[in-house]
Amino acid sequence: MVKRWNTAKKVAEKAWEMGRSDPRKVVFSAKMGLALTLMSFLIYLKEPFKDMISYSVWAILTVVVVFEFSIGATLSKGFNRGLGTLSAAGLSLGIAELSKLAGDWQRLMIVVNIFTVGLCATYAKIYPTLKTYEYGFRVFLITYCFITVSGYRTGEFLDTAINRFLLIALGAAVSLGVNICIYPIWAGEDLHNLVTKNFIGVATSLEGVVNHYLQCVEYKKVPSKILTYQAADDPVYNGYRSAVESTSKEDSLMGFAVWEPPHGRYNKFRYPWKNYVKLSGALRHCAFMVMAMHGCILSEIQAPAEKRLVFRSEVQRVGIEGARVLRELGSKVKKMEKLGPGDLLFEVHVAAEELQRKIDKKSYLLVNSESWEIGNRARDDEETHPQQGLFHTDEERKFLECKSLSEAVLDLRTLQVPPSWEGNPAIDASPNMFRKELSWPDQIYQKSKPVPKEGQESKTYQSATSLSLTTFTSLLIEFVARLQNLVDSFEELGETANFSDPLDQPPPL
Amino acid sequence: MVKRWNTAKKVAEKAWEMGRSDPRKVVFSAKMGLALTLMSFLIYLKEPFKDMISYSVWAILTVVVVFEFSIGATLSKGFNRGLGTLSAAGLSLGIAELSKLAGDWQRLMIVVNIFTVGLCATYAKIYPTLKTYEYGFRVFLITYCFITVSGYRTGEFLDTAINRFLLIALGAAVSLGVNICIYPIWAGEDLHNLVTKNFIGVATSLEGVVNHYLQCVEYKKVPSKILTYQAADDPVYNGYRSAVESTSKEDSLMGFAVWEPPHGRYNKFRYPWKNYVKLSGALRHCAFMVMAMHGCILSEIQAPAEKRLVFRSEVQRVGIEGARVLRELGSKVKKMEKLGPGDLLFEVHVAAEELQRKIDKKSYLLVNSESWEIGNRARDDEETHPQQGLFHTDEERKFLECKSLSEAVLDLRTLQVPPSWEGNPAIDASPNMFRKELSWPDQIYQKSKPVPKEGQESKTYQSATSLSLTTFTSLLIEFVARLQNLVDSFEELGETANFSDPLDQPPPL
Repeated sequence: MVKRWNTAKKVAEKAWEMGRSDPRKVVFSAKMGLALTLMSFLIYLKEPFKDMISYSVWAILTVVVVFEFSIGATLSKGFNRGLGTLSAAGLSLGIAELSKLAGDWQRLMIVVNIFTVGLCATYAKIYPTLKTYEYGFRVFLITYCFITVSGYRTGEFLDTAINRFLLIALGAAVSLGVNICIYPIWAGEDLHNLVTKNFIGVATSLEGVVNHYLQCVEYKKVPSKILTYQAADDPVYNGYRSAVESTSKEDSLMGFAVWEPPHGRYNKFRYPWKNYVKLSGALRHCAFMVMAMHGCILSEIQAPAEKRLVFRSEVQRVGIEGARVLRELGSKVKKMEKLGPGDLLFEVHVAAEELQRKIDKKSYLLVNSESWEIGNRARDDEETHPQQGLFHTDEERKFLECKSLSEAVLDLRTLQVPPSWEGNPAIDASPNMFRKELSWPDQIYQKSKPVPKEGQESKTYQSATSLSLTTFTSLLIEFVARLQNLVDSFEELGETANFSDPLDQPPPL
Repeated sequence: MVKRWNTAKKVAEKAWEMGRSDPRKVVFSAKMGLALTLMSFLIYLKEPFKDMISYSVWAILTVVVVFEFSIGATLSKGFNRGLGTLSAAGLSLGIAELSKLAGDWQRLMIVVNIFTVGLCATYAKIYPTLKTYEYGFRVFLITYCFITVSGYRTGEFLDTAINRFLLIALGAAVSLGVNICIYPIWAGEDLHNLVTKNFIGVATSLEGVVNHYLQCVEYKKVPSKILTYQAADDPVYNGYRSAVESTSKEDSLMGFAVWEPPHGRYNKFRYPWKNYVKLSGALRHCAFMVMAMHGCILSEIQAPAEKRLVFRSEVQRVGIEGARVLRELGSKVKKMEKLGPGDLLFEVHVAAEELQRKIDKKSYLLVNSESWEIGNRARDDEETHPQQGLFHTDEERKFLECKSLSEAVLDLRTLQVPPSWEGNPAIDASPNMFRKELSWPDQIYQKSKPVPKEGQESKTYQSATSLSLTTFTSLLIEFVARLQNLVDSFEELGETANFSDPLDQPPPL
């Protein structure tokens, strides 16, 4: 009993929270109640209209079915319903007149007709290009069958059709009136906000991925939800996932938004909602790179922490600048403003170029020169600079301070080496050995003592771990390259949607 | 006139093609026609049941609304409809009795009740966890309002409710009977096939991506549809895109499949459809890597063809083995068979390991040693092997033969360097210069003559192009690593769904 009470309390709390976070939902429900109430006033009708009540079901049906959350959806459903009803009424009246001529065969003809119409309408309904009118076909079928069947009984095909149509029109009028006149909810507005939200989400993910990578955050165990691409609680993952997953939501919102008349800030006939979806697609194209970068964190092959530190400031700067560009574009979309004069991408391009230079200079850190066929670079070098080894600057020496961190972090799971590999003589690196090697970075890089022969395979892994850093930086640079396409899409949207020019605004006095 | 005729012919051809490629659609349409025809036999009813025809609309409505493509969808809608009607009927009868007590206030009480019920039911409808019962709430509202309103007129609340319920039950029975007994179409079967198709799609994409990469296929201009993640004609792109995009389709199919009783090969109560979706999610996790590899082909930064040639056989082998694993898993899912004894991943792991070794040995090809702070490796090397330069084996020398190809392929678009960069003194590489450098690979690598000072920036790009090859191979190796997770998901599915064991089958005589 207490348990039930608690469950009920929890549900009520959640429902309250839903209403608080999006009051439009409460308003929508109240509007629906109001529309139904208006319909129920039919019961106050006096003679000679009292008979209308027997048709009241059509008005109620129309309200319940047509009344949707957004205006676009309501209009599109209303249009479908209207068209379906009218064409079905026309067809059924025509066929009814014909069937009267058939005399004794009238009933058989009606039955055969219903089969034919049912088959054709259903087949058309699942025809791909007509799929948006699916609801219209349903209404068509209902109306056609109803008029034919009930008209046969009463013989008053026309009366049935007209009464039905009048009440459907009444229901549709009430739905539209209540939905548009009282606190309208626009699908276009929702689409606009969704696109803005996606920008913020990807920016957050990018920052998260870059920071986690530099802080060597590693998943103890990758959540199986991420491995099977389900929704999870991880904010870094959620940011890009929701942007990637919003395709179908955007498409349906766009489908409704095109039905909406010009309103508020979207005061243009044939508003280019398509471009919002396109912009979001371009953002998705960038988000895939963030996703791939996140893949580097999820991966079992992890770059050593001390190497990441070498590129720290450059990678961080690209991450910060990239996220800034995304946030800036997101806020421009939100404010419906064109880009300012300067080049939005200038900073991020400079940062990426700097990262590229740094990689260029230090690319010896990204590879394992010991096994080169052409001779060992590292050893040559040590002969010329015996005190320094490979590490010249203070920055690079930081890796020594970070050693304890790397021991904690580079905890390679045993998943790495599947049992069946052990049978293969060429590959006998056990995960333990691999781990040991990784926690002694000085031994590997500075070669202060000879490495035992059995370490050969683990060096192959070792090289893979360094290449993982290359992958991360390359993906980051590719992400920056894709920003250009995003900006182009944004500018196209700005042009077609007549975004305001920030320069046109009156200068502050 | 002729034009219209042609359009009509085209539509008819397409409709015919649709029916030919998926005959179930024709069957479904015919079944729908049949169900409606059965309903229309109501008109043959004689007295005393003739009055039933006036309620026939409910039966027709039920058939049109409940009759869905798959059995799962029909059952779930039928259940929603039944539950919605019953609960609404109960509530409205109760309130009708109460409102009779109200005397003069009866009508007002009805109106107020309709508002309250409309508001609550609508609010519950958009409550997230109840969203699957959305249709049930609609039916509830329609029934509640109808019984209340029309019952008020006739005063026969109970009669209205019972007649309505009888005809809805009749409609539902006919729908279910026709749908299940004649050529049943199962949502579970569809889900199963969709998952199988995704495996084939990703495998095709993987092969395509690897082959295109090795053949240095480059997009003259990346289709804007790919840049904005819309459906495009590119088969390589389509393979992984449809696997990534099928999330919502899978979810809805799963929602229907759980309603379906055990049937055919899915002869287990509470069949684990969830695991199919999970397996598909794990496949998606792999597909993201294929997507990122495709990103390397779409990228503006392209690895030189001659370097790709060096790793050709290893990369190709990993690609072939990876695709083989995917196809094998796909066919196992299709045949509902468990994995055989040996390790499915053995070959692909060996291939990946070999690629890793090769990278390890030749990683000097992946970096640009000229700008290393610690001294120039390449030049040292040339002193010791003056005739050979960096290229020792026949395989590596192939790059000279591929020169003309590389000139055709490495056509860098001007998009690469945005105009604003020209103002930055540090970055003054013009795209033309970059292109010139790239088409002289021997000059760059073998250093037969001194490189002019102005080439410095283009070498930064040069280094980026080589790192792009690293990225591709790393992503490929990460793809292989993710296969383990895919196999695990498959095995979980095989266990829970009682897949047959290939060893259990009788040996051939």
